[in-house]
This record gives sequence, structure tokens and C-alpha cells, in this order.
Amino acid sequence: MLEHVRVILVEPSHPGNIGASARAMKNMALSSLVLVQPAQFPSAEATARASGADDVLMRAAICTDLDTALTGCGLVLGASARQRGVPWPRLDARQAAAKALAHAGTVAFVFGREHSGLTNEELDRCNYLVQIPANPAYSSLNMAAAVQVIAYELFMALKQSRPDTPAEVLATAEQRARFYEHLEQTLIALQFLDPAHPKHLMRRLRRLYNRAALKENEINILRGILKSVELALMDRGPWPEKTQ
Amino acid sequence: MLEHVRVILVEPSHPGNIGASARAMKNMALSSLVLVQPAQFPSAEATARASGADDVLMRAAICTDLDTALTGCGLVLGASARQRGVPWPRLDARQAAAKALAHAGTVAFVFGREHSGLTNEELDRCNYLVQIPANPAYSSLNMAAAVQVIAYELFMALKQSRPDTPAEVLATAEQRARFYEHLEQTLIALQFLDPAHPKHLMRRLRRLYNRAALKENEINILRGILKSVELALMDRGPWPEKTQ
Repeated sequence: MLEHVRVILVEPSHPGNIGASARAMKNMALSSLVLVQPAQFPSAEATARASGADDVLMRAAICTDLDTALTGCGLVLGASARQRGVPWPRLDARQAAAKALAHAGTVAFVFGREHSGLTNEELDRCNYLVQIPANPAYSSLNMAAAVQVIAYELFMALKQSRPDTPAEVLATAEQRARFYEHLEQTLIALQFLDPAHPKHLMRRLRRLYNRAALKENEINILRGILKSVELALMDRGPWPEKTQ
Repeated sequence: MLEHVRVILVEPSHPGNIGASARAMKNMALSSLVLVQPAQFPSAEATARASGADDVLMRAAICTDLDTALTGCGLVLGASARQRGVPWPRLDARQAAAKALAHAGTVAFVFGREHSGLTNEELDRCNYLVQIPANPAYSSLNMAAAVQVIAYELFMALKQSRPDTPAEVLATAEQRARFYEHLEQTLIALQFLDPAHPKHLMRRLRRLYNRAALKENEINILRGILKSVELALMDRGPWPEKTQ
């Protein structure tokens, strides 16, 4: 799972962001949270925003500096929206998640202060700078929102490394063929479809229903409707002559 | 860009979530926000959490019901974490973003109440239910966090998009609503649907047709068929008494 991934928040100033980050982590099956010099912690606001992830908060470690927070970590990834003078090696969030999943040891994602991000000295500890692709005109995500995106990409990467969910059972080609035949006969009986000038009506309808990828029980409903139209037509008289 | 994507928040109870959603949207180049019966708006807390995205808040529309909020929308995608008895057609966030980008008309992403999400009646308006893959043990994201993930996937899809597939024009939500109403009336007239015991028939049929993402001309064909059934019923006599 994702036990080997540590989320480190450096000097978070708003306790609400700590709580929201804990929730985002638990939503995505992450549990290891480390706080470096939080302005206020523990806090009622953090607990409220954590909602059902208060267990992540309770187990959060608190450190006085980033180096301590990184103890035992192999791969270190620093999240940052700021453009840097020195071109650090970069990954986007999706690439970073793939790299984190492929790493055998402990991986740290480091998130910087709300207003100023990570310092260059802190980025010196990172193997890569991770950027979340964003609107160039407004690229700075809220801290917990950034944790949410990274955690989501980690969960997606984990999910895709596993076998897929079973496919749905669709109607067979024969069941579909019988439905289309039934539909055509009914439309002829309704005088909606003129067999002498069918145009492309049946093709259009097939295309529509094929796109829906009908299930067996749905075909049964649709054929039930056709049956009730046939019954209604049976005990009406012949169609009047067309007058126009 | 992403001007054709509308974010609709249904009955948000916490103004902070409205502000954080606006920020998440602007970070990902989205700007069209619609609020359905917000508990409190405008609000100082929403503005604070929006940070530099207060322009998105200022332009937000406020509606009294979801149908009004959906005016003009073609593709409608409802975000939901809850498991449903009836299996709605589903997309994950990434698939939904790809579908939204491929759609030529206006696309709505609908987010439900903080504690209870969207009702089944609200999901009946949606072509697809969108689920953000998450920890099965704690799958409910904060509202603004869900907006962040969807908006991020939209931005990623935009970034990766190639203008090779022509976008298709779907019927609008209003056209679909009128078709379902017409279908229901016709099924009642056919005595296929008993209004006293409707069961889940209309929901099943909506699900089937929503999945097909009907085009305008297809709706015209289907309503033409319904019209010809009505004509056939008009000049038949009353239904015989049921004998069993």
C-alpha cells in the first residue's frame, strides 16, 4: 500500500490546513504525517477539518527541523509552485507519484509554508522538485489542496498497478439482433418506418443503442415496451387511408 | 480552454468550502461557478478562503434549484462517493475529464451537499456519476477537495489534449427532460407503466439513455416514435378490463 510514503508539512501557519491535509491523506490511503514547527498544534480547528481522519492527526510526528523530519527517507520530493532561478530537476505530480510507487524505501513529499513555500536550502534536500500543473496566471494551490492532488495521484498510481475491476455483463450480439428486428417490425406496424423507403432510420437507431452498451435486463424492458405497442395495435382497426 | 465547464455546488453548508472551491477552480483555469441554495453567501470566510480567486466568487451565479443551474448544459456529471443501490453509469475523475474535454457544448460537474451528497432525483439529471478513486475505508472527500481533484484532472486533460477528435453536439438537459416526460406519458398510456406502482422503470430507462449521450437529432427520432404510438392509441377504443 502507501505506508512507505511520508507527508511533511513545513511550518504550516493555519491549523485548518493541517486538518484538511490529514483528511486528504486518509481519503487516499496515506497515514504518515510529519509537521515541522507548526504555528499551532494540536488545535480544535485542525481536528474539525480532519473530520474522520483525526487518527492521522493523533499519530502525526512533530519536528523542529526538516532534516529530522526526513530521517530514514530515500527519495525526497519537494512540492513547489514558485519558479526558481536554479533549474532543479522537475517532475509533475503524476510523474512524481509513479516514481514514488516505484521506490522501495521511504519516500517523502515535502510541502512548504502557505505564503513562501520551501526555501532553496530546503529544496537542496530534495531529489526532485514536484510541480502541480496549474493556471500560469494563478498557480499557487492551497497547502491542503496540493496535498490532495499529490495523494490522489499516488492512489491512482497504486490502483493502476493492480488488476482491473471485472467488466459488466452486456447483452449478447444475438440478443441485440433480436431486439433490433423486433424494433423494426414494430416501427413498420406503427407506419413510422416505411419498408419501401427505410432511409437510414434503423442504422441511426442501432448506432444510438449500441453506444449505450445495453445490458440483458435493459433489452428485456425495451422489448416489453415493444410488445405492449403491438398489443395496442392488435385491437385497433386498420390504418385510415393517408389523405395527404 | 475550460470556459465551457460549469461547477455547480448543491446546497453547500460551509462558506469556507465555497471559497476553497473557487480557489481550486481558478488554480486550474476554471471560472464558471453556480451555487444552488448556499446556506450563507456572500461570506467573509468564503472570500478569505478564495484568496486570489475572489473574482470567481464575485461572478458566481446563485440558483434556487438544480434544474435552473443546469440550464443550457449538455453533458451533466454528478460527483458522488456514496454507493448506490441502482448502478448508475460511472466514470472515474480522469475518464470524466476526458469526456468533458471532448464535449462541444456546456458541461456541468455537480457536487452534492457536504454530509449527504446528491439525491437520487438529482443524479437522475446526470449522464454519469463521477467517482474519485479513494480509500474504501474513508472515501468521502471534502467538497472543495473533490472540486480540486476534478479541476486538476480537467487541466491535465486540457494539457494533454490534441485537437484530433471532432467534438460531438449532444442534446441539452432540457431536451432530455422533455423526452423522458414524453416517454413516461406514452408508457402510461400504453399501460406498460403503472403510475401507482412505477417501480424503478423510468430510472432504469433514463440511465440507459443517459449512457448513450443522446444527440439532438436522435431525440427527435425517439420522440417521433412516441408520437406515432400516441396516434395509434388515439383511435383505438378504451383498454379492455384486465381479467387476471
